[in-house]
Amino acid sequence: MQLSFIGLGAMGSLMARNLIGAGFALRGYDAWPAAVQRFRDKGGQATASAAEAAQGADALILMVVSAAQAEEVLFASGALEALAPDGVVVLMATCPPGAVRDLAQRVQATGRGFVDAPVSGGTAGADAATLSIMVAAEAAVFDRVRPVLRALGNKIFHVGTEPGQGATVKVVNQLLCGVHIAVAAEGMAFASRVGVDPQVVLEILGGSSASSWMLKDRGPRMIQPDPEVSSAIDIFVKDLGIVLDAGREVKAALPLSAAAYQMFLATSGRGDGAADDSQVIRSYGLLNAGRAAPA
Amino acid sequence: MQLSFIGLGAMGSLMARNLIGAGFALRGYDAWPAAVQRFRDKGGQATASAAEAAQGADALILMVVSAAQAEEVLFASGALEALAPDGVVVLMATCPPGAVRDLAQRVQATGRGFVDAPVSGGTAGADAATLSIMVAAEAAVFDRVRPVLRALGNKIFHVGTEPGQGATVKVVNQLLCGVHIAVAAEGMAFASRVGVDPQVVLEILGGSSASSWMLKDRGPRMIQPDPEVSSAIDIFVKDLGIVLDAGREVKAALPLSAAAYQMFLATSGRGDGAADDSQVIRSYGLLNAGRAAPA
Repeated sequence: MQLSFIGLGAMGSLMARNLIGAGFALRGYDAWPAAVQRFRDKGGQATASAAEAAQGADALILMVVSAAQAEEVLFASGALEALAPDGVVVLMATCPPGAVRDLAQRVQATGRGFVDAPVSGGTAGADAATLSIMVAAEAAVFDRVRPVLRALGNKIFHVGTEPGQGATVKVVNQLLCGVHIAVAAEGMAFASRVGVDPQVVLEILGGSSASSWMLKDRGPRMIQPDPEVSSAIDIFVKDLGIVLDAGREVKAALPLSAAAYQMFLATSGRGDGAADDSQVIRSYGLLNAGRAAPA
Repeated sequence: MQLSFIGLGAMGSLMARNLIGAGFALRGYDAWPAAVQRFRDKGGQATASAAEAAQGADALILMVVSAAQAEEVLFASGALEALAPDGVVVLMATCPPGAVRDLAQRVQATGRGFVDAPVSGGTAGADAATLSIMVAAEAAVFDRVRPVLRALGNKIFHVGTEPGQGATVKVVNQLLCGVHIAVAAEGMAFASRVGVDPQVVLEILGGSSASSWMLKDRGPRMIQPDPEVSSAIDIFVKDLGIVLDAGREVKAALPLSAAAYQMFLATSGRGDGAADDSQVIRSYGLLNAGRAAPA
């Protein structure tokens, strides 16, 4: 099976490495030369273009940053045309469900297969090949790439047969993640504002019905003034933007998501887009106490 | 040690039973005759008034529904005056921090002690004596009632020396709980709206970074049309109301809490205040699909 991998960034480079480790013949491309070099160093067959990577491949994995980039790779760059006539496109990037449906239709119109397969688990999951993968595709098409997905994740869910359904589940996942981070910041900043030690609050809430995965993971970093970046503010500006786009597609109101998005957006707008996403708490600090570090 | 217990409702009756079981001499009162009878049936010494229950007691435990009721019991009903001159008032109800500070000052002005000691853990925790108790009081005053609290909970945190600080931690706890329930509904209803099985979404999210204690507990009940009532919508109308009151006291903006409150408020406003709090999802169903049950 000849595989092609486009998008060798923070997630993609780790996923590509796991595919190479699992014995797949892998050709890869990224618009960023340093990413291509890193891929080559890990034993990948680097190419000079997306179309060259896709040439005659059985499956084309897309781990690009947006639906627009996926569209450019497939159509403008000619990767889809280069793919084997019965090849399968596997879109693993987080994209709005409507855009995924559109891409799927255009791919399927050429006779090729399409698998909507976004992931969750972050760089840690990509590194350890323990990603959750939310697959929406016809069973026969899914079966053809199942061994590929098994090399990337250990929780593979077949959520539906229509492309866009996987993207929807991922959208709902990001909706909860983003709101959970923002509300943890809202609560911790409020405790600080009224003179209660946020460390004590965190200890109590982490063991109560107020707990969330994000509270336990991001909460400790909210107390640090400038923590190491695990995932950046701008990732949630993008992902909650996709959540709201998905709501707009079907005209569904998502009031908590919209409020959380504003807090990430303002944080990025002040120049903190590259900071750790726990630092959305800076916006609460400024909003309610006039200083970035709640105290 | 002579104890007095005022407020024998869903939580209070279970807590009172545990105090009796631990061997405390307990006099109790509630304005609702059926609650008094239940207390008597469990071996409590029922009285005809709050003041009679408090007469000469070393500690007066208040598990009433609001700060206004605590004030009425203590001052209008004469319970504080009836308490031993060196007695301690233990306020365990969820109240706004500012109201707790005011009550504490008025109690302390009579020479008596005040312990701010709200709880979390719900009726299950009250039943099993596994409540979390967030204590704010001077150490010497706290020490006098420590054996009482140990009979009610197994996670007792001394969060500060100033009454109101315990209430603040409880406020932050309820802030997260309420938003977590509402956002779980927002995500689950959205998945239904766009044709993805909410049961599948729940399974995936419960094992991902999108998980929360509330998602796992309330999520399954969101899929049921009319689940058994574990905790009512109106409890969160009250508790998120207290969260927003606490924010108003110090003029702190709490945008996610405010949005979540609106969803609980609308649910109650349609007559579903006594429904299980998972049924806040009905408001999302009506808002986005025009029907109470998302499908």
